[in-house]
Amino acid sequence: MVRSLRLASILLAGACALALPAAVQAQDAATVRAAETLRDSALKSNVALDFVTQVTTRFGARPAGSPAEQAAAAWSAEYLKSLGFQNVHIQEFPLVGWERGEESATLLGAHPQNLVVAALGHSIPTPAGGVEGEVVRFHTFEELQAVPDGSLAGKIVYIDAGQLIPMQDGSGYGPLTRIRGAGPAEAAKKGALAFVMRSVGSDMHRMPHTGTTRYIDGKVPLPGFALSGPDASQLSRLIDMGQTPRLRLTSTARVYETVSQNVIADVPGRTRPQEVIVLGSHLDSWDLGTGAIDDAAGGAITIAAAKAIMEHGAPARTVRVILFGSEEVAQPTNTGNGGGAYLRSLSPEQLRNHVFTGESDFGADRVYALGLPVGAQGSDFAKAASRVLYPIGVLPLADPETSGGADIGPIVQAGVPVFRLNQDGTRYFDLHHTADDTLDKIDPAQMSQNVAAWTALVWLAADSDVDFRAMRPAQPTRP
Amino acid sequence: MVRSLRLASILLAGACALALPAAVQAQDAATVRAAETLRDSALKSNVALDFVTQVTTRFGARPAGSPAEQAAAAWSAEYLKSLGFQNVHIQEFPLVGWERGEESATLLGAHPQNLVVAALGHSIPTPAGGVEGEVVRFHTFEELQAVPDGSLAGKIVYIDAGQLIPMQDGSGYGPLTRIRGAGPAEAAKKGALAFVMRSVGSDMHRMPHTGTTRYIDGKVPLPGFALSGPDASQLSRLIDMGQTPRLRLTSTARVYETVSQNVIADVPGRTRPQEVIVLGSHLDSWDLGTGAIDDAAGGAITIAAAKAIMEHGAPARTVRVILFGSEEVAQPTNTGNGGGAYLRSLSPEQLRNHVFTGESDFGADRVYALGLPVGAQGSDFAKAASRVLYPIGVLPLADPETSGGADIGPIVQAGVPVFRLNQDGTRYFDLHHTADDTLDKIDPAQMSQNVAAWTALVWLAADSDVDFRAMRPAQPTRP
Repeated sequence: MVRSLRLASILLAGACALALPAAVQAQDAATVRAAETLRDSALKSNVALDFVTQVTTRFGARPAGSPAEQAAAAWSAEYLKSLGFQNVHIQEFPLVGWERGEESATLLGAHPQNLVVAALGHSIPTPAGGVEGEVVRFHTFEELQAVPDGSLAGKIVYIDAGQLIPMQDGSGYGPLTRIRGAGPAEAAKKGALAFVMRSVGSDMHRMPHTGTTRYIDGKVPLPGFALSGPDASQLSRLIDMGQTPRLRLTSTARVYETVSQNVIADVPGRTRPQEVIVLGSHLDSWDLGTGAIDDAAGGAITIAAAKAIMEHGAPARTVRVILFGSEEVAQPTNTGNGGGAYLRSLSPEQLRNHVFTGESDFGADRVYALGLPVGAQGSDFAKAASRVLYPIGVLPLADPETSGGADIGPIVQAGVPVFRLNQDGTRYFDLHHTADDTLDKIDPAQMSQNVAAWTALVWLAADSDVDFRAMRPAQPTRP
Repeated sequence: MVRSLRLASILLAGACALALPAAVQAQDAATVRAAETLRDSALKSNVALDFVTQVTTRFGARPAGSPAEQAAAAWSAEYLKSLGFQNVHIQEFPLVGWERGEESATLLGAHPQNLVVAALGHSIPTPAGGVEGEVVRFHTFEELQAVPDGSLAGKIVYIDAGQLIPMQDGSGYGPLTRIRGAGPAEAAKKGALAFVMRSVGSDMHRMPHTGTTRYIDGKVPLPGFALSGPDASQLSRLIDMGQTPRLRLTSTARVYETVSQNVIADVPGRTRPQEVIVLGSHLDSWDLGTGAIDDAAGGAITIAAAKAIMEHGAPARTVRVILFGSEEVAQPTNTGNGGGAYLRSLSPEQLRNHVFTGESDFGADRVYALGLPVGAQGSDFAKAASRVLYPIGVLPLADPETSGGADIGPIVQAGVPVFRLNQDGTRYFDLHHTADDTLDKIDPAQMSQNVAAWTALVWLAADSDVDFRAMRPAQPTRP
């Protein structure tokens, strides 16, 4: 999943790049032609579909630190070797894992009903037998914040902030995740027994969306749950009808000490192998689905792009695919996720030689925009990228890219220049963190376009000596 | 649910009925004008949405014979009285109820996975601790029939006959329900431990479709389960990859003695109150969803139609709304469902005075065709009905209607003439018998058109002296 997304301004004048052949020629013309060839052949490749099919079918859900994630990592390493990747290795790191166990939600009273819930990741369990209390509903997080501390003793806090509105760039997600992250702690401050929220999701299926919530003093302070969209609507309608629902919530969730791991594989550079471009994604998934769109698809897309580049003949720089471990559970009290473990493994010199990075963690639908570091805006590299990507429907973003995502975040924070291939997230939050994140949701045609975009862009950067760190904007992007 | 559906031939010449004003005049012109008025005002009524909202929200799932069904029946009777219905009463009958309990399916082996299943209705439980066995897959029921009896000892039979293909008239459903009905008994003959099938459904969500299966010698012979579409695809892919999956299945399902009930309410006829038109639907639902489309919607549509007729002023004949109990569990060994109980309550004279009947049990989407008894084809009544229904998109069916559905089936078998307002079932089997059958799936605009069609047609029949029993076709419908 992508933690911070913003409305991206599309540079509508992007097509103008096409009218600048002289500028494009400043990028090596043979490299651009090769990028075009790679782009077109990637559209016909089946490597991505093969990987996402195999990893989701053989291992199912792959919770961070679980035996399934560990087995999937070992299998993926062998898979990458069989494709011809070099220096394939597994980088282990310690982790506090979380296991859901059994859970339930029952509306009590004259006409009991079962509601479909999922505990939020890393939630503490309820006492045996569950917790029971009257439901107090809030429409926003701020409404909950406004009531006096301790005033909700014995109650169950329920926030129904409405459905997530689907957006191409997923920009509805950020504001609602604040509720998921901070809700249990805020409800605890008010004295509540438990915290329940409408799922952060855009669908209306009986499948709750799980996701992490925040630790306070070494643990999530209350049992926290997400209701599916239809169940949240049901609970809210009962309240609107004048009832005061009582809920019984049970959960046997637990944490445990384990290890997770990054799977690292290279296409070594031909002439400057010490210069590395990292393509990130994560191999762990939430426990409810089989993690097809989140994020076996990201592994599939980056592996297929690197494999296509390998087949064409190694570029100047090294292309490194990393299937990160434990993206979904990063917590202040955890020992860290895969991105942090990778950063810690690098020497200062190695880190300086990380020349570029990007992350694929937003499903498998088509790429529609390219974000580049601030200094690269308007550069010859940007013009070459536009020329190669425009024919498959990818426009340049006006805003520079700075964050990357959760997995490459640590190296980006440490100074590695980052790109983003924005992909269509209109239906992503129908499926995200639910049982419905399964292979059948992958659209092979859109995934192929996605691979083509990654292949072409990575090739352009890998078979060049562009120094994205050194680039400075010709003029301020913000007047 | 509708048990037998067939591809309906649409009489494309239907619009010709509009060109026959002389024939239409043979039906009382004032009645036709009133039908048009009723049709148009029904489009603006909110009675149907109110009923389906309240009954699904207040009571949730309403399994046949459960406290929830009983409470919903008592509440519905009060609701009907408050709308002004007369002779409102509850007709009780004994029933063998079925309760799901807890259930699970686990893929065993090196990489265990949980699969999402639902026991088929009235399935026997597994022994405590479940059953474990190797999965043997079949693509058709006939493939299973072809193996020698006793040859699958210790195995779990799995039939994956593919997804149901969505059709406007739901005609894909019938062939697949044979597998659900006869599968467990056939698997038992082969010596298997349990029976598993791909859900009879057209969606790809992690929600299995339950439904009844057949009793043999007083019980379902094996534990039977439906896998959700994505889980069935997962299991089949593992087999296609060359694995021989082992499954552990658990179920604590049980049967119990209880009562169900029909809720009966009249709009008494003005001049011939002894002549009755029965509008049927069922109040029970499967346990997984809240039974919005199956079949609170049917109650909502028929109540709203009868209420609109009542508001306009009583027609000549009595319009009777029946919310049948226990539609979903009819079994040879059961004491019978609501339709049978109602038939048994009628004297021969009362039965003869049942002049017409129809059932609404296929969701809440729009009505697109009208089926009439064989003798009514081409009659003045049919022409009047076409004139009134064509403007809201309802065409006459060429094939005469003979069955009705599970609830009115018993009185239809006993000679009561039957009509059918066919409604669009394209998305019905995405939701049918799943947890996803919830209020949010109702499209209020389509349901209003549905109510308008029912209101106009029932008015035409109720404010007339047409004797559908006496009608004989002017010429054979099958040359």
